[in-house]
Amino acid sequence: MLDPVLQQQIIDKNRDFMKGYRKDDPYLDDFVSDQQQRLPQPPLVKAPMRTESGRISLPLDFSGLSLKNDLLALIRDRKSERVYTGQTISLTQLSFLLWATQGVKELRGKSYATLRTVPSGGARHPFETYLAVRLVDGLKTGIYHYLPMEHALEFLSAPDDLDTLIGDSLSEQKWAAKASVVFYWTMVAYRAEWRYGIYAHRVALIDAGHLGQNLYLAAEGVGLGCCGIAAFDHEICCRMFEIDGKDEYAVYTMPVGTVSAENKEAEQEFYRFVKEQNL
Amino acid sequence: MLDPVLQQQIIDKNRDFMKGYRKDDPYLDDFVSDQQQRLPQPPLVKAPMRTESGRISLPLDFSGLSLKNDLLALIRDRKSERVYTGQTISLTQLSFLLWATQGVKELRGKSYATLRTVPSGGARHPFETYLAVRLVDGLKTGIYHYLPMEHALEFLSAPDDLDTLIGDSLSEQKWAAKASVVFYWTMVAYRAEWRYGIYAHRVALIDAGHLGQNLYLAAEGVGLGCCGIAAFDHEICCRMFEIDGKDEYAVYTMPVGTVSAENKEAEQEFYRFVKEQNL
Repeated sequence: MLDPVLQQQIIDKNRDFMKGYRKDDPYLDDFVSDQQQRLPQPPLVKAPMRTESGRISLPLDFSGLSLKNDLLALIRDRKSERVYTGQTISLTQLSFLLWATQGVKELRGKSYATLRTVPSGGARHPFETYLAVRLVDGLKTGIYHYLPMEHALEFLSAPDDLDTLIGDSLSEQKWAAKASVVFYWTMVAYRAEWRYGIYAHRVALIDAGHLGQNLYLAAEGVGLGCCGIAAFDHEICCRMFEIDGKDEYAVYTMPVGTVSAENKEAEQEFYRFVKEQNL
Repeated sequence: MLDPVLQQQIIDKNRDFMKGYRKDDPYLDDFVSDQQQRLPQPPLVKAPMRTESGRISLPLDFSGLSLKNDLLALIRDRKSERVYTGQTISLTQLSFLLWATQGVKELRGKSYATLRTVPSGGARHPFETYLAVRLVDGLKTGIYHYLPMEHALEFLSAPDDLDTLIGDSLSEQKWAAKASVVFYWTMVAYRAEWRYGIYAHRVALIDAGHLGQNLYLAAEGVGLGCCGIAAFDHEICCRMFEIDGKDEYAVYTMPVGTVSAENKEAEQEFYRFVKEQNL
């Protein structure tokens, strides 16, 4: 067990991290951002990691999708789903989920900012999207990187035992390895730090929630289930996505899978302890 | 300007805060949560702050609302709006926004968890909602606290100069004081710490984004505009909502107002610097 005094100190620091501008912040008055100093702006998106040959264009015509077009029902029915039936999803469904979470709508200025389907503090959009693809029509199994400017995927690798890797990457939440596809979002930190410096990181975590919620609703909209997972393994994610874990690191993940109303009971198993402990 | 070495140290610490479970985390192996120690669970919601006499029940029948139900259009058209036309919104519109962001759908167990319209790590739902109401049909101007179990508001106070207070609370973003209502979400930290201890705070910031995105989409759905603001004044929020700033503190805010397509030009003024600086 942790020393209670140490534990309370960490908790106090973490609470402070979450707070807005405070009079007792010793740095606020002296802070000058790299943007204010007119330092060069970092690229709006990560450069492609592979040559064009392994690139898959994603459809942007969503008219063929059967969408649940009822805002109240979307918000009401959305829930975290952890029991997947292991069916293949279509490339258009996946394309819609990628568009809904990080799709680029337009550019502001020549290259000042991307405006996307989700909000981001100062329109910095510091995230990259990686996928572990298991069951998507037209995609071979493996790891992919999303190119938001082109709305395309690039194939990165096909690890030997992807299912085990997914489970391990999500801190042994093995149910996630039955998803059709797992979304992993990383933070390219300087993209936000250029403008917000030491104040970039609180805002970026909130932004991760913005896109997570859009994935929840978009998945509900196309009849798929998903579940946000903040408990993931930093080192395994670094290896899976060929990132350094320092300038770019994983911040949030979400498995998406096919679901069935009949799996309600299996879903309830995750909460058996509530009944057992009479909570 | 901050000392660059100090600045980099803070940035490194903040980046670490955002990451998942790491091998170099010295605390993970020893961490035991209060829940694991069978310490009593904190209440699922904050107790009412006033007597019942000042309580306003909110309508849960949303059938009278004119909703934009097209999921693709909702996601595509949502954007941050900062220019408000200063019209009064209906109590049903406000009720829908509160329901969409923190509404309780059901209880898990006797009192183990609330299931809400947004996801939250471990269903801890550590947030409280406060409102600065300016122009809502049937509500007098002032500060309110949302009671999610009753889906009701309780009136807290009517500060003398609410518009100035709103602007000051949002770090002098004076445009926000033309909103019809401003949402402020606070964190009741122990509600999440009971289960996640020193690991509660990263997850909670992501959760703040979940509810923020639902407000964006719900506002778009009822034809209103809004804009998430993470730059707020800690001390002023404490005074406005009668919170201690330690066990409960503000984490995210969002003004909501009436908008007009004709205000597009005024909205562009916020980005004049992009053109001026040839970015």
